[in-house]
Amino acid sequence: MIEIERKFLVTSNDFKQEAFKSTRIIQGFLNTNKHRTVRVRLKGEQGFITVKGQTDSNGTTRFEWEKEISKTEAEGLLGLCEPGIIDKERFEIKVGTHVFEVDVFSGDNDGLIIAEIELAHENESFKKPGWLGKEVTGDIKYYNSQLSKHPYKTW
Amino acid sequence: MIEIERKFLVTSNDFKQEAFKSTRIIQGFLNTNKHRTVRVRLKGEQGFITVKGQTDSNGTTRFEWEKEISKTEAEGLLGLCEPGIIDKERFEIKVGTHVFEVDVFSGDNDGLIIAEIELAHENESFKKPGWLGKEVTGDIKYYNSQLSKHPYKTW
Repeated sequence: MIEIERKFLVTSNDFKQEAFKSTRIIQGFLNTNKHRTVRVRLKGEQGFITVKGQTDSNGTTRFEWEKEISKTEAEGLLGLCEPGIIDKERFEIKVGTHVFEVDVFSGDNDGLIIAEIELAHENESFKKPGWLGKEVTGDIKYYNSQLSKHPYKTW
Repeated sequence: MIEIERKFLVTSNDFKQEAFKSTRIIQGFLNTNKHRTVRVRLKGEQGFITVKGQTDSNGTTRFEWEKEISKTEAEGLLGLCEPGIIDKERFEIKVGTHVFEVDVFSGDNDGLIIAEIELAHENESFKKPGWLGKEVTGDIKYYNSQLSKHPYKTW
């Protein structure tokens, strides 16, 4: 129930050729504050509700709980979310033994591309592809919950 | 997904003899505001996560979505909830063709007893037992989300 992830900006579109999968994600938040977020996500034909706790001081580990729900349930719950629904295309790219998830944002966050990698422990090493830019792990303005309230186009 | 319920105070303990079931409920809120609440509930051995929308102007109908989760998941999520966990014993009593749920609160809400009945439509009639007191439907201070923040003992 604890996830460790590191987050990076992306410097080129080269990742698209390497992607083995891409999925449209539409998501909103039932609430967002520094103690916890409750997220509703429509990922292709699947729905999810996800609760995340506060990030620790390093910005890498946090409590996470997720449950799959139906597409119809997700659509109903999205209608109840705070303003600022996020729409993005997620590309999955295998690099070495890890999978990077690269989110290409649309709408009010158009122009923003973020790569994430999930790790088993904080100091685990991983291969860095050429398109990987500056690390932004722990920078809250790149949290999806923040992008929902303060989208990229307003920066 | 829309529930219609009416809520009443309770004037005596006579309902206990008529109850066919009683269950301990421990619940907390991942968030509460006037637009929506996300509740985590441990009901006996079962867990639930429930999202409720805003109540309409009559205070009787509101969007509700609920998913069963495991006891362990509920316990984990309760640890992430806002302060003000609610602890109560729920008695279920059949009266005519309806079932009343009577909640006897403990802890900071000790002394408070509330009966609720769920109806198929707003004007549906139902039999009123002798222990049923003043109607408090739509009075937000009796919402569990409010009792969590402003418990009965502080009134």
